[in-house]
Amino acid sequence: MRITLLTDFGTADGYVGAMKGAIAEIAPSVLIDDISHDIKAGDIIGGAFAVRRYWDRFPEGTVHVVVIDPGVGTDRRALLIEADGRFLIGPDNGVFTFPLMHAKSVRVFELKSDGLPSSTFHGRDLFAPAAGRMAIDDRSLIGEEISDPIKFTFPRYYTTDASVRGEIINIDRFGNLISNVPGAELREGMVARIADRDIPVSNTYGDVAPGEILALINSDGMVEIAVRNGNAALMLHVKTGAAFDLVAGRTRDIS
Amino acid sequence: MRITLLTDFGTADGYVGAMKGAIAEIAPSVLIDDISHDIKAGDIIGGAFAVRRYWDRFPEGTVHVVVIDPGVGTDRRALLIEADGRFLIGPDNGVFTFPLMHAKSVRVFELKSDGLPSSTFHGRDLFAPAAGRMAIDDRSLIGEEISDPIKFTFPRYYTTDASVRGEIINIDRFGNLISNVPGAELREGMVARIADRDIPVSNTYGDVAPGEILALINSDGMVEIAVRNGNAALMLHVKTGAAFDLVAGRTRDIS
Amino acid sequence: MRITLLTDFGTADGYVGAMKGAIAEIAPSVLIDDISHDIKAGDIIGGAFAVRRYWDRFPEGTVHVVVIDPGVGTDRRALLIEADGRFLIGPDNGVFTFPLMHAKSVRVFELKSDGLPSSTFHGRDLFAPAAGRMAIDDRSLIGEEISDPIKFTFPRYYTTDASVRGEIINIDRFGNLISNVPGAELREGMVARIADRDIPVSNTYGDVAPGEILALINSDGMVEIAVRNGNAALMLHVKTGAAFDLVAGRTRDIS
Repeated sequence: MRITLLTDFGTADGYVGAMKGAIAEIAPSVLIDDISHDIKAGDIIGGAFAVRRYWDRFPEGTVHVVVIDPGVGTDRRALLIEADGRFLIGPDNGVFTFPLMHAKSVRVFELKSDGLPSSTFHGRDLFAPAAGRMAIDDRSLIGEEISDPIKFTFPRYYTTDASVRGEIINIDRFGNLISNVPGAELREGMVARIADRDIPVSNTYGDVAPGEILALINSDGMVEIAVRNGNAALMLHVKTGAAFDLVAGRTRDIS
Repeated sequence: MRITLLTDFGTADGYVGAMKGAIAEIAPSVLIDDISHDIKAGDIIGGAFAVRRYWDRFPEGTVHVVVIDPGVGTDRRALLIEADGRFLIGPDNGVFTFPLMHAKSVRVFELKSDGLPSSTFHGRDLFAPAAGRMAIDDRSLIGEEISDPIKFTFPRYYTTDASVRGEIINIDRFGNLISNVPGAELREGMVARIADRDIPVSNTYGDVAPGEILALINSDGMVEIAVRNGNAALMLHVKTGAAFDLVAGRTRDIS
Repeated sequence: MRITLLTDFGTADGYVGAMKGAIAEIAPSVLIDDISHDIKAGDIIGGAFAVRRYWDRFPEGTVHVVVIDPGVGTDRRALLIEADGRFLIGPDNGVFTFPLMHAKSVRVFELKSDGLPSSTFHGRDLFAPAAGRMAIDDRSLIGEEISDPIKFTFPRYYTTDASVRGEIINIDRFGNLISNVPGAELREGMVARIADRDIPVSNTYGDVAPGEILALINSDGMVEIAVRNGNAALMLHVKTGAAFDLVAGRTRDIS
């Protein structure tokens, strides 16, 4: 039985330590895996993209705690989501958008939050204990089922016969520019266009020389712009929200 | 059985890895929970505040290793503290001030440090092995009981009939300004005064609009200045040590 | 059974989370210990020095996963190394130089990487699953034994009767300057010379006053320049590659 933690707390203040203690107090032998505590403070969208990458990689029964919670101390709801056999615990603010969209089976419950010791640290006083209890099969904090959890609407992409128009929705630590266009939209003979540049499509980094730019289908299954051993965001001066097109062009010859 | 680690080592040099290995060599199946390795180099006070937040959240029997140790290689003592059933292992430099002050039952022992392989890395060569041994119920490194471990003296706060004068003693990642005034001192009708500003007292973030400043009793039970979805330290240009008062005033009406 | 992780992924994008999930999917109860995810992007040499510090501190049977992999998506080989009873999994790019050099018994195998779901994220799709399988005693991903894994050649040091000439090969978070000269070369009466300064040799930090510089044999067994409670790299403006000598001189008197 494993519990994972994703927060924007940093670690140096000891808040994450307090959460781990609150879990261990209830479930002394549960395994706790850090995902990250370096999400930018309040960056719900960044947190949502992180969740997308790991939530269903863990086995069924895993409890994922996610506390990026700028709304703590307001009346935002606290959730427990069951998505394809994994449990997700955290605030109702969109951070669970991807499991809510992608899971084949989803149920969403409110967590009971009456009489908490603090109104500003639900990570320690509500979400961590809820996770600890799930680990020992105590469901007493699960409240009413609800049908309207908050989901982000990500920008759509548009297709014509000859082209696809999307945008950059996420940039990772390596400066890879991740678009909202699924890899399946990438057709023979297309090139990517971004920041007034046409960028050839390749299968993988090794198809281009170090320092060269390429478009490829990334490990999330999305079309991405990358620089081999470099940083595409810095090279192109591109930010999240930038327009991104796939247009007819000549793909680089690969022999 | 869990061992937690707090250091100022960062992780990239592999020193924390060496400590984890030294623990696992002795106690191969013990759970190791990171608290933080991002304490500022040598920041014993920052470490002490982190310890305050988690040490007694973990269940009895937990072993907390804390290595913020600018005095390694001098004659500073190495300690094992038993505080309310938890064990704390690390240098005698004040980093354990809060458990020493707050625990109902405390005993303090020196660790035996003869014949260590290095004189500059007690994290790996003394504290980690001592923790591993505690995990397998081997007490052979526990030396003499002592009565004078180092404790910080935190600045006092002063009360009159109408007011409280304290100071800011800790600032967290979110820019929350944490005073040395316990929440119990906060009386009806008081406002907080800091940096020439009167700040209304509220119960929680949701009582004010995003971007607005408030005083509240925080999750440590202390009076704190915060900005909803913002950073009070940046907004007020306030640092640790700043004067902080509670004075008569009109609390914001909450309907 | 423990698996350790060292990467240059940072944690905020969720890539490390995806690796942990891929491990837990295969080996649900294995202990996963983070070493670091803060290695500078693509810094194979920095990763190699970290590996040096922890790989053989863990007990036999430990599986160390190391993914600093700027060559992912090229034809660089994927390795499983058995070194003195520990397993090391990662790319064939020199990051395992120290265990390859120092282990008494070493065998090196290629990992089978046919038909992976992605060509850009071997951390999740190859190395993590390989580690998970080792943890459950499934050796099905182990391929051909090879004899020519990549090793860095570190600069040699040179000795005369009276002196040793080496260089600085690693600088840690504390600004300690670590040379390529083993402690055994340090003879009675020598001083260290670097950046036109003669630096007395001491046994440990406590032998000098706070803020003073010293040379000593460090916890890796190498000669190092350090500043007590300070940062030698900043004080001397020295970088990796700087010349470093041990010459005849008068060691500080220690009474």
